[in-house]
Amino acid sequence: MGVFRDQLENYLTRMEKELDSTVNFWLDNSGDKRNGGYYVCLGREGKVYDDSKYGWLEGRQVWMYSKLYNETWKYGKAKVLKAALSGGEFLLNHIKRPEDGRCYFQVTADGQPVKIQRTIFTECFYVIAMAELARASSLSKYREEALRMLSLVTHWARIDDTELGRPKLSGQEVANPLAVPMMLMYVIDEVCRDDEELRQTYCKDEEWAVQQILKHLQRKGRVVLEKVTEEGKEIGGAEGRLINPGHAIEAGWFLLQYATRTQNYELARIAIDKFIEQSFDTGWDDTYGGILYYLDANGFSPTQLEWNMKLWWPHAEALIAFLMAYKETRDERFMEKFDLVFQYTFSHFSDPKYGEWFGYLNQKGEVTHTFKGGPFKGCFHVPRCLHMCIKMLKELIEEEPLTNGLPNGTYIP
Amino acid sequence: MGVFRDQLENYLTRMEKELDSTVNFWLDNSGDKRNGGYYVCLGREGKVYDDSKYGWLEGRQVWMYSKLYNETWKYGKAKVLKAALSGGEFLLNHIKRPEDGRCYFQVTADGQPVKIQRTIFTECFYVIAMAELARASSLSKYREEALRMLSLVTHWARIDDTELGRPKLSGQEVANPLAVPMMLMYVIDEVCRDDEELRQTYCKDEEWAVQQILKHLQRKGRVVLEKVTEEGKEIGGAEGRLINPGHAIEAGWFLLQYATRTQNYELARIAIDKFIEQSFDTGWDDTYGGILYYLDANGFSPTQLEWNMKLWWPHAEALIAFLMAYKETRDERFMEKFDLVFQYTFSHFSDPKYGEWFGYLNQKGEVTHTFKGGPFKGCFHVPRCLHMCIKMLKELIEEEPLTNGLPNGTYIP
Repeated sequence: MGVFRDQLENYLTRMEKELDSTVNFWLDNSGDKRNGGYYVCLGREGKVYDDSKYGWLEGRQVWMYSKLYNETWKYGKAKVLKAALSGGEFLLNHIKRPEDGRCYFQVTADGQPVKIQRTIFTECFYVIAMAELARASSLSKYREEALRMLSLVTHWARIDDTELGRPKLSGQEVANPLAVPMMLMYVIDEVCRDDEELRQTYCKDEEWAVQQILKHLQRKGRVVLEKVTEEGKEIGGAEGRLINPGHAIEAGWFLLQYATRTQNYELARIAIDKFIEQSFDTGWDDTYGGILYYLDANGFSPTQLEWNMKLWWPHAEALIAFLMAYKETRDERFMEKFDLVFQYTFSHFSDPKYGEWFGYLNQKGEVTHTFKGGPFKGCFHVPRCLHMCIKMLKELIEEEPLTNGLPNGTYIP
Repeated sequence: MGVFRDQLENYLTRMEKELDSTVNFWLDNSGDKRNGGYYVCLGREGKVYDDSKYGWLEGRQVWMYSKLYNETWKYGKAKVLKAALSGGEFLLNHIKRPEDGRCYFQVTADGQPVKIQRTIFTECFYVIAMAELARASSLSKYREEALRMLSLVTHWARIDDTELGRPKLSGQEVANPLAVPMMLMYVIDEVCRDDEELRQTYCKDEEWAVQQILKHLQRKGRVVLEKVTEEGKEIGGAEGRLINPGHAIEAGWFLLQYATRTQNYELARIAIDKFIEQSFDTGWDDTYGGILYYLDANGFSPTQLEWNMKLWWPHAEALIAFLMAYKETRDERFMEKFDLVFQYTFSHFSDPKYGEWFGYLNQKGEVTHTFKGGPFKGCFHVPRCLHMCIKMLKELIEEEPLTNGLPNGTYIP
């Protein structure tokens, strides 16, 4: 058992070091002193190569800073809170459109709107930013913002999304993308975490989201598809056959977290076996290692040009998912898979010289894009993964007694 | 000189063979007998893997079939005309929206609308399809459709594009994308080719398009950028620094064609030196061969995930451009570059087994996507390239006398 505990401590040490360099990377390079908010297009060393700001990433970074400030002694510093507040005010003043609560996807450095998406995602990241910043700052205005926006987002996701402006055309199958219920579930959990009464208000929405996510498990449970019909049937064509293994794995740990909280062991089993492990086995590249970005469920060539690339975030999600699966089951198979992803990730994505991870590798694992931040990569997946894994590793290490690697955990039968 | 003529005949033989197999690939596999129009998502062997139809590709295929029918003895067959007519009726009945003339980007196999873009491109391909089909069929209704749509497209491109529905936001720089004037120029030339009076009506629009394209030549003529401001200034950030070498090369032969027709030798020089040769030299991958898809003018990592891939169409455009540059100048340098692209293209993209070309290679030149047709690859770039090169090669071969490889051509001083 000593060996196993050493192994956990090795992961912990490496991840704590990595979180430090990642957080420092963003704190040192990202803040816009003139306008507030964050530059996110940062080159390998952290230099700004484009001063555009992206609503998704501004919101995620506020959430991440606040989370670290709230949950760790090391980052509970005025510097981190001030950085979070700078982004929070930028969100309030420049990302949200006052008249209807819609949020901009892209703005200029000084906050002039450039692009608005016809989806709810920027708004979702706005919610989690405001909820966590409220806890960090104890300022109720952020909490009020989070609640107002959560109510809008829930309405758009469940009742009526015509306000988002996407034209309805007669040939469109009403597709249910995996991302919408996933986001709703995550956002509700983030806001309601410390408010049981509020959680009750949203528990029907959470249940709805779980059911929507489960509809994506298709073909007698053999595959998780990105888009299905509202009735939970497979959509025809390449769009309907699309698999995004990393996304299914992320949905898996969202479900597992929910299942653990609600003591729904049947759901936990589905989350682990189908969403996490099966999706990982489908997506793992046996030839070159790493998780492929997209696959076609019938084995056709996916049409997405980046299908065979290795992106950083599916690997971050897989690390969280396998450690969580191990923690809940104590099945060593999941620790072995955690280790497989850990070795690949730290030898391919990590940048010991300047901190943070490279985001994009080709199929063979060579870095294709040298930047650390871009329009879709900010201060989020890497530090969230490291922070969550560090917490879980500490819990595992602190547990006593550890016997034969099979201790008395809350394991799922 | 005998050697040189042999070389031209070798290219010709290979390209004629390739055109045959390409045209047969589409004629054999693409037609939708039930609904009319064309399936375009075809696997390596030609099997349909998705029955969606795409407005760009339906229009381009009608144009291509009609063009081959009109200009070549070999394809002047009832079978080709019937295939063109089938697509033409599908365009009329299912791609165009009757109430406002907008065209759908994507429809179902039976023509129910799925997606509409907020750009003019589907409409532009509709115009060239109708214009060429009118010549092939001698049916005036297609000509009338082409003229009606050309007038709409010109209005959207030059006067007011609010009908396209893109929201105007205060932080957007009014960007001038290279594609809009390129398309307008190409469309006008296709419609007016045999109608000098109509050409006069549109000559101001053609001149406008030429001036707009020239604004993309930036940094004292050292680079062609994809997007510039309306005043012809560089836009800040990664978007403003984007280079698409294949697109600049295509713009080059559009300009060269125009310059030759209008005997504007100064413009021809810019087209050849700056748009064609300089863009090619910038985009050519000295390590692995092939033309890179995107570059950043300051040498940063482009943010597009596919930046380092080798796509089929820039190579098709480069073949047309260098052969045209040689034909107009008789400078053997261009023939050498034509040969360089020819060797790469025929050894990497061509599929001797099933016809047509693979569309997508990784940086090292390995096929990453096995399909021959997809949402953005149809019956267009490959046969257009082969058809145009065959015509030019025949003209070069038939010219007499050929002396020392430097005959009396219409060469540019």
